[in-house]
Amino acid sequence: MAYRSQQWLLQSRPTGAVREDNFSLHEVSVDPEGLETGEVVVKTLCLGFEPAMRGWLDDVRSYLPPVQIGEVMRAPAVCRVVASRNPELPEGALLMGFHGWQEYARLSASEAATFNRLPEGTPPTMALSIMGGTSLTAWFGLIEVGKVKAGETVLVSGAAGATGSVVCQLALARGCRVIGIAGGEEKLAWLREECGVSEVIDYKIQPLAETLTQLCPDGIDLFFDNVGAGTLEAGIDNMRDHGRIVLCGAIADYNTENPQGPGNMFQVIARRLQINGFIMLDYIERSQEAIDDLLTLLGEGKLAWREDVQHGFENIPATLLRLFSGENRGKQLLSLED
Amino acid sequence: MAYRSQQWLLQSRPTGAVREDNFSLHEVSVDPEGLETGEVVVKTLCLGFEPAMRGWLDDVRSYLPPVQIGEVMRAPAVCRVVASRNPELPEGALLMGFHGWQEYARLSASEAATFNRLPEGTPPTMALSIMGGTSLTAWFGLIEVGKVKAGETVLVSGAAGATGSVVCQLALARGCRVIGIAGGEEKLAWLREECGVSEVIDYKIQPLAETLTQLCPDGIDLFFDNVGAGTLEAGIDNMRDHGRIVLCGAIADYNTENPQGPGNMFQVIARRLQINGFIMLDYIERSQEAIDDLLTLLGEGKLAWREDVQHGFENIPATLLRLFSGENRGKQLLSLED
Repeated sequence: MAYRSQQWLLQSRPTGAVREDNFSLHEVSVDPEGLETGEVVVKTLCLGFEPAMRGWLDDVRSYLPPVQIGEVMRAPAVCRVVASRNPELPEGALLMGFHGWQEYARLSASEAATFNRLPEGTPPTMALSIMGGTSLTAWFGLIEVGKVKAGETVLVSGAAGATGSVVCQLALARGCRVIGIAGGEEKLAWLREECGVSEVIDYKIQPLAETLTQLCPDGIDLFFDNVGAGTLEAGIDNMRDHGRIVLCGAIADYNTENPQGPGNMFQVIARRLQINGFIMLDYIERSQEAIDDLLTLLGEGKLAWREDVQHGFENIPATLLRLFSGENRGKQLLSLED
Repeated sequence: MAYRSQQWLLQSRPTGAVREDNFSLHEVSVDPEGLETGEVVVKTLCLGFEPAMRGWLDDVRSYLPPVQIGEVMRAPAVCRVVASRNPELPEGALLMGFHGWQEYARLSASEAATFNRLPEGTPPTMALSIMGGTSLTAWFGLIEVGKVKAGETVLVSGAAGATGSVVCQLALARGCRVIGIAGGEEKLAWLREECGVSEVIDYKIQPLAETLTQLCPDGIDLFFDNVGAGTLEAGIDNMRDHGRIVLCGAIADYNTENPQGPGNMFQVIARRLQINGFIMLDYIERSQEAIDDLLTLLGEGKLAWREDVQHGFENIPATLLRLFSGENRGKQLLSLED
């Protein structure tokens, strides 16, 4: 018997902020009968949400092709195989990979090959949060790209986010001084109390550049930036000579038609700064290094995280918007399990 | 008998564009009698002008301390020793270093030690142009910071300038494809005919980003930027994945109160770009490496340059302004020799 499967398709490209009505709900039938060799049918258990998904909606060259109008919206997901003609992915297997906003899907052999199989019993939310792409992004960005060293002063923007909070804790575990920037007392308290980040700045009420100058009169060695725009500018103004900036995200830019660049690029020259943009996917083949280290820290109780789990297929587009309003508290997820 | 020496002092800090009346003319007396051990009196023969001098007028932390109100304006210069109690710098010695807008000056032993002695007979203009700081900037920026490799596509902004034109020729000599950006047919013709840069863009009449996309559909490997702002933005939009940007200058920003940063910093992430700001002074101990290479190219006739030599002590501030109006044709100098 065929499954009825709801899907959220990209209906129109946002100009500026993404809106719920950029997506439209459809229903298709997914037939588990008559699979070709290598094909599987999967049921989506949990979806992950990341600011970078906003970028996939624009029709510009980027590190992944844009989602096309009328296509199912792309998203990281954990799925279970419910029908299989693929001996490597038998019925019941738990998979993680780039999937989409859909309840069921039939995957070709080549599509199925892009998924990773998870150990049975892995909680789907954990696979997408602390063991997921945002944590790998934190690890490779801080260690491989940022080349963090013990004793350095590390600034992290979006510090209460899924990536930022892991960056903070990895840097603390390596003996760095860490300053976290986030918005609102609830997030700051979580950073202080659960993540051990004793130095935090509330960008909503504290003037960022001036506060950084007070906290770091000798300057910042490494800035891990998830925000861009004015936050990047304030960081540049407080870097030490020869400091490094890791550009991981620019959430301040994603939802605006006219992003403002940092107006102090001359300071990048005067202070001989190095800025490195990076994408975690470039390091995906080396994931196990990061996973081993993250598991060790988890086992030692040195890695706090939190998940913001929404429910209901109908709430998927609204859940994406939570990332940009700052409403999310921890890694944004949506569970489709009962 | 004491020398009468005119000086240009910083009278006021510019807000936005530098103006002639930010400087004021004074006259002092410089007495060559009664020198202490190690002291010398020098006569200024030639002054060099660089866009970076605009930055020295702002009261902000930078790679050199700001010039103070009432101080003689700092400038690279070639001088001749006219009185000496310093056995290493006898009367008649030819010196180059950071000096100032003044006809004569008495230098302490420690001040004198910051100057380099030039071989007798070196033309002062040549010491400040093709063998001067702007050429060293080109060499270290392209080779040490940019790590240029044969076969790469190299974009140079401010390509007709003293630094840019040397960057273009060094990159051509290393087997790169070079695209030069400059303003106006006269400069473009000079780049094509004298410097051998066959691919040039006139930013005054050609849309920069679109022209780059046409010329470099596969993207740019290395961008040596002297301009900043919209030029940097257009370059970022046309970089190849993992491309490198060397930030040498930001002349578009120097004379404005509200510099505009590149609005496409997200592309630095999506394309995994590396941006390196640098200052030639960090490499000054290694000057000889660059000088040897430049002399070799000069000897082979592979290094074209031109000098824009103004005259008259009274014309010094106006000569600085020529850099920002784009009036200068080649390395901007002012000779004080008869």
